[in-house]
Amino acid sequence: MSDDPTFKPGLEGVVAAETELSSVDGQKGELIIAGFPLEELAANARFEEVCYLLWHGELPDQPTLKTFRTTMASYRELPAATFSLLAEAAKHGASPMDALRMATGTFDLDVAGESDMVKAKAITARVPPAIATYWRLLNDREVIPPRHDLSRSSNYLYMLTGEVPGPETVRGLETYLNTVSDHGLNASTFAARVIIATESDMVSAVTGAIGALKGPLHGGAPGPALDMVFEIGSADRAETFIREKLDRGERLMGFGHRVYKVRDPRADVLARAAERMYRAEGDMALYELAKHVEATAIRLLDECKPGRNLRTNVEFYTALLLHGIGLDTPIFTPTFAMGRVAGWIGHCFEQQRNGRLIRPESAYIGQKGRQWVPIEQR
Amino acid sequence: MSDDPTFKPGLEGVVAAETELSSVDGQKGELIIAGFPLEELAANARFEEVCYLLWHGELPDQPTLKTFRTTMASYRELPAATFSLLAEAAKHGASPMDALRMATGTFDLDVAGESDMVKAKAITARVPPAIATYWRLLNDREVIPPRHDLSRSSNYLYMLTGEVPGPETVRGLETYLNTVSDHGLNASTFAARVIIATESDMVSAVTGAIGALKGPLHGGAPGPALDMVFEIGSADRAETFIREKLDRGERLMGFGHRVYKVRDPRADVLARAAERMYRAEGDMALYELAKHVEATAIRLLDECKPGRNLRTNVEFYTALLLHGIGLDTPIFTPTFAMGRVAGWIGHCFEQQRNGRLIRPESAYIGQKGRQWVPIEQR
Repeated sequence: MSDDPTFKPGLEGVVAAETELSSVDGQKGELIIAGFPLEELAANARFEEVCYLLWHGELPDQPTLKTFRTTMASYRELPAATFSLLAEAAKHGASPMDALRMATGTFDLDVAGESDMVKAKAITARVPPAIATYWRLLNDREVIPPRHDLSRSSNYLYMLTGEVPGPETVRGLETYLNTVSDHGLNASTFAARVIIATESDMVSAVTGAIGALKGPLHGGAPGPALDMVFEIGSADRAETFIREKLDRGERLMGFGHRVYKVRDPRADVLARAAERMYRAEGDMALYELAKHVEATAIRLLDECKPGRNLRTNVEFYTALLLHGIGLDTPIFTPTFAMGRVAGWIGHCFEQQRNGRLIRPESAYIGQKGRQWVPIEQR
Repeated sequence: MSDDPTFKPGLEGVVAAETELSSVDGQKGELIIAGFPLEELAANARFEEVCYLLWHGELPDQPTLKTFRTTMASYRELPAATFSLLAEAAKHGASPMDALRMATGTFDLDVAGESDMVKAKAITARVPPAIATYWRLLNDREVIPPRHDLSRSSNYLYMLTGEVPGPETVRGLETYLNTVSDHGLNASTFAARVIIATESDMVSAVTGAIGALKGPLHGGAPGPALDMVFEIGSADRAETFIREKLDRGERLMGFGHRVYKVRDPRADVLARAAERMYRAEGDMALYELAKHVEATAIRLLDECKPGRNLRTNVEFYTALLLHGIGLDTPIFTPTFAMGRVAGWIGHCFEQQRNGRLIRPESAYIGQKGRQWVPIEQR
């Protein structure tokens, strides 16, 4: 590795953008979304309000929100090309994230000449129907057309199951989507900004972001955190199970975060959302087990890795909450995209306003002065 | 704007990666591709040799190249899903770059379980057939199936026109593709690295890169440079036309570059390729006119903008060369992607080897401490 002082591997510590969308303070365990502490916003706002907030900087009043929701809902039908593509992808057994990326690339086919705000609404409206449609196609179940009288979250669960979900389940999902709606310059958001900064279009940017979100290093893999709870199965097995895992040097999924050095503020919000949802409409036994596993894990991590201060991260309660909502593990990450798309698009608008090409440099560490040798002489 | 010293707008001057793939020295006007000065490589190598070089670090010997070309050629058929998608996109009149982005997202549907090297070959093999297929669909012409006995470049022109091109035309196209095969951390290459750095997949990375390449700020818009030559029409009108344009304060397309402060080395290589191709198989009158326009433009730029040292950039000769090859202006940028895909994939392999998440920071400049107001009170 070069000792060039301008080389910043992973761009760590480099500020690549100024933003009014969110602030992540890992030392304080604080997340601000468009001026609101996460705790203030997540459990109160409908997701469409958060979209409006991230795109316009202010919360909408009642008539504005009504128009905003109605317009957005009007784009829920997928273009015919999107539907055919999902059907083809299902024949190949593509992963739900690959299918969502492919589908997203086609979301503006019927609104190509419209404004970016129209495209923003069409993209945001179509992510949930694309996930639900694909998940049913992949599982050989009949596709359920969208309903326009339901909220975006409620319609998502309806298109997945055919049943209109209860209010606490919808509230749980909306709290999750709000919680993950934006989070500084994470890799997918950064990818979106790099793409839109060339003055490319919003579908290209969001498609790139979904491609980045797919990668396991992004942190969008909450499934395994819950797997441990299922594996443990009953509270009395927790201590032995976790201690053996730690003794073998294995990592506990759902604990620790690259940025947050104290408790991840999103974990608290999601823990409360999960408790509320499970108490009203869920399986309390699973909830109690998860709480016990969490407490045991924290205690044993403090004992086995003193000073590391590893705390429950967003993935643990994401998994618990999304499972309680009735989602299958393979669509956890697509559902993450369903929330984060609000932030991606907010960052696209912001990047367009402050437009500047994002073009870092590379340091060449290869050979020089090679001479061409015709293939006959190789 | 904040005065935070870690804020690097556009990441200018920040080294985000070390690479053995290419070196761009704007002060010297020097471009090195995998150890070779551009001038040494571009006019000599077949494009498949450059792919192999960028992916393996060495030029292939004869049997290796033969296998490499044959394997790559075997992926020229587009998956059925890709073809249907292109047909749907054509119904909507999507731009060729949007169509290529959508198509690329589907390139691994039939090779999803294969190695990244297989995916690299499939993606690289399928870009030209996707462009040619889409261009014919968009223009209501019958689609021409690929031929496997032709080189990738020759097959591209065959699929566009139905005719096997002459050797100098193919040589001209290959020289162009080699010339644009890699160019440091340009925005599309950087997008690809950001995406693959999350341990996402190659199709996601290349799809994101195509989305970035589409943007006009990327510099992939060679069409307008030639438009001026056509508008001028005859040599005697050049001086008046250009002088009037400069007097009106308009920019001359095809001159000047953000990075190269002296002559763009790619312009020289492409100028020679254009001359050779036009002399053997092209319209010499157009070539002579373009040379005259270039010389006049340089003279008048030096006169009107002394000290700026604006020189012919890669776009001017790209446009002349690609037009001479017989390509229509709307597929110039997709044809750029057809060359750059070798570099994108090389960077993906390199990023995978040195794997590290690329995650810069953002500086929050928004409000804090906003309090939730229920919608009834707004």
